[in-house]
Amino acid sequence: MNSRRDFLQKLSLGIGAATLTDLTPGIAAPVTSNVPADKQLRVALMGLGGYADIVARGMKECKTARLVGIVTGTPSKIPVWKQKYGIEDKNVYNYENLHEIKNNPDIDLVYVITPNSLHHKHVLQVAAAGKHVVCEKPVADNAKQAREMIAACEKANVKFYIGYRLHFEPHTKELVRMREAGEFGKIMHVNNYAGFKIGDPTQWRLKKSLAGGGAMMDVGVYSTNGARYCTGEEPIWVTAQESKTDPVKFKDVDETVTFQLGFPSGIIANCGCTYNFNHVEMLRLMGEKGWAEMNPAFGYGPIRGTTHKAAIDQPDVNHQAYQMDGIADAILNGKPDPNVTGEEGLKDMLVIDAVYESLRKNGAKVFIKK
Amino acid sequence: MNSRRDFLQKLSLGIGAATLTDLTPGIAAPVTSNVPADKQLRVALMGLGGYADIVARGMKECKTARLVGIVTGTPSKIPVWKQKYGIEDKNVYNYENLHEIKNNPDIDLVYVITPNSLHHKHVLQVAAAGKHVVCEKPVADNAKQAREMIAACEKANVKFYIGYRLHFEPHTKELVRMREAGEFGKIMHVNNYAGFKIGDPTQWRLKKSLAGGGAMMDVGVYSTNGARYCTGEEPIWVTAQESKTDPVKFKDVDETVTFQLGFPSGIIANCGCTYNFNHVEMLRLMGEKGWAEMNPAFGYGPIRGTTHKAAIDQPDVNHQAYQMDGIADAILNGKPDPNVTGEEGLKDMLVIDAVYESLRKNGAKVFIKK
Repeated sequence: MNSRRDFLQKLSLGIGAATLTDLTPGIAAPVTSNVPADKQLRVALMGLGGYADIVARGMKECKTARLVGIVTGTPSKIPVWKQKYGIEDKNVYNYENLHEIKNNPDIDLVYVITPNSLHHKHVLQVAAAGKHVVCEKPVADNAKQAREMIAACEKANVKFYIGYRLHFEPHTKELVRMREAGEFGKIMHVNNYAGFKIGDPTQWRLKKSLAGGGAMMDVGVYSTNGARYCTGEEPIWVTAQESKTDPVKFKDVDETVTFQLGFPSGIIANCGCTYNFNHVEMLRLMGEKGWAEMNPAFGYGPIRGTTHKAAIDQPDVNHQAYQMDGIADAILNGKPDPNVTGEEGLKDMLVIDAVYESLRKNGAKVFIKK
Repeated sequence: MNSRRDFLQKLSLGIGAATLTDLTPGIAAPVTSNVPADKQLRVALMGLGGYADIVARGMKECKTARLVGIVTGTPSKIPVWKQKYGIEDKNVYNYENLHEIKNNPDIDLVYVITPNSLHHKHVLQVAAAGKHVVCEKPVADNAKQAREMIAACEKANVKFYIGYRLHFEPHTKELVRMREAGEFGKIMHVNNYAGFKIGDPTQWRLKKSLAGGGAMMDVGVYSTNGARYCTGEEPIWVTAQESKTDPVKFKDVDETVTFQLGFPSGIIANCGCTYNFNHVEMLRLMGEKGWAEMNPAFGYGPIRGTTHKAAIDQPDVNHQAYQMDGIADAILNGKPDPNVTGEEGLKDMLVIDAVYESLRKNGAKVFIKK
């Protein structure tokens, strides 16, 4: 519990996680083997905000995926990205000519990193262009949109993944492995929190029309996904409560939400997420035979975890590089899909929909619609 | 987070905390000055179960309070207690002749440690006998009973305290001092858990008629009281959810309850309590300027805490001795009441009543009746 640096917060401060990674001695290299350039997955990033830059820097470490293109509505960013990441003119698109990407044989996949409420529209456009898609979380504004996105990708015969980087992160994977191996015994409870104190009050994340929601829609996805990978179960009901201490800054979106997920086995995951305080990026799992605590659990790294046995001893890796190499490996080499498909995003969206419904109903128990 | 021994569980295993204390080198002596025997507060314990023994052993360290009497319905315990604690025959009572205690000038106070659902009746009996009362938590089965107990003690002109030992515990007191001094800034959130995996399925704690309820009624009081001393506010609403994984063992009472307290400032305390898993005795406070984590937070000691500044550096003391000396000091020397009065018990009972009401209403928000 000594290290409480809020790595998520670094994002809001504009300090990329890749910077931290660069400074971390002994960082592990991705485990995938080196791949000839003509056998790599060629990726374009759509939406060149802060997180796109973190992904681009991370992808410099990739072996199987390679950043080759960009989609941006801000012309001034084009020369900067060309220079920083060696993007060729033929792989530069804007939102007006995006459909032409279907004629570009040098781009295999588009990674959608636009504001949340644009994900639905943009994933549909990419699918229509016949390119594979990675979409940043949350997958969409609601489960209905997520289902339409899944259907569109299936129809277009393209892969559809969500940017759930932690599913490629070694400490998190070890936690899941231990749980699946029964090392904690029957899981009895999960308690987790994700969040940070958000900065600039004018940013898109605080506008419902662009973000779809507040803390719950953004960092709440970590709590939700974490509760699901800690239990291995799908929740059947949700209750939720909101704390609003700054109604001016958070007039449009939720500030802090606590929520509970009820699982078929009878256990509860008690979760929280916030945009208005720090020191909350943790995940605790209590089982009949043992326990685990991850803290920090959800940031860009390093992730740290301890169990009833010992500290989780795994390498610190670049999350974004591992994610993109893992996805490339599945697409190029026919490996089984990692657990980050559109369906996985839909499962979290079903919870988020139910959380907002419970909030509207004063905390009442809402059963999740399948 | 390394030390996770569940000291509360020791109680259910029949291992007294006093034993642990005896083994702790360098344990601090109570700070109150030595007091002549004729100026001590003379205490009788009512209900000689496991916790009474822990209190009796702890009171050997007392300076201002002194164990002199017992009230028991089990004759076989009398010679054991006489021998162990030097109780004189004239100070031994049973539940039939309890009223005669009013004629005993050598007993000043009765500490009621009977099963929860008997607290109301027994406190009324002690008050009617004109003796001061300490009552173990929970004060009663519900707020209505608690109000009657407070009124009865006021009418009888006797003091009425609850066994909230943590209000005398140095780490906890330091946490409260830091909060009151503004060292955490505005408090933004509290997250706490109390509980343990309960043993013997035949014990009174699992019978509603004797315990009044399950985990919420017993260890839930720690979470509730902790949320209140971490915020310095009184909650205005409650939501609650129950997890029941063992409907046979917990057919009569609640097994695991998660509950949320909404405070006037808009913040939420997200709490939990359980009778069915271990590794959950912690309290986390998040403020605008800092944070604190107590773990273990609620057991008989040692209590451990860390803040954004450093580990909380306080002596490990015998909770029961400090509690009884603190109460004795207030009664004998006219010091201000410690924050463990019947009113304090009532405030927690109001929350507990609301939690059970929310559970009956499927998690709906229940406003606390004042």
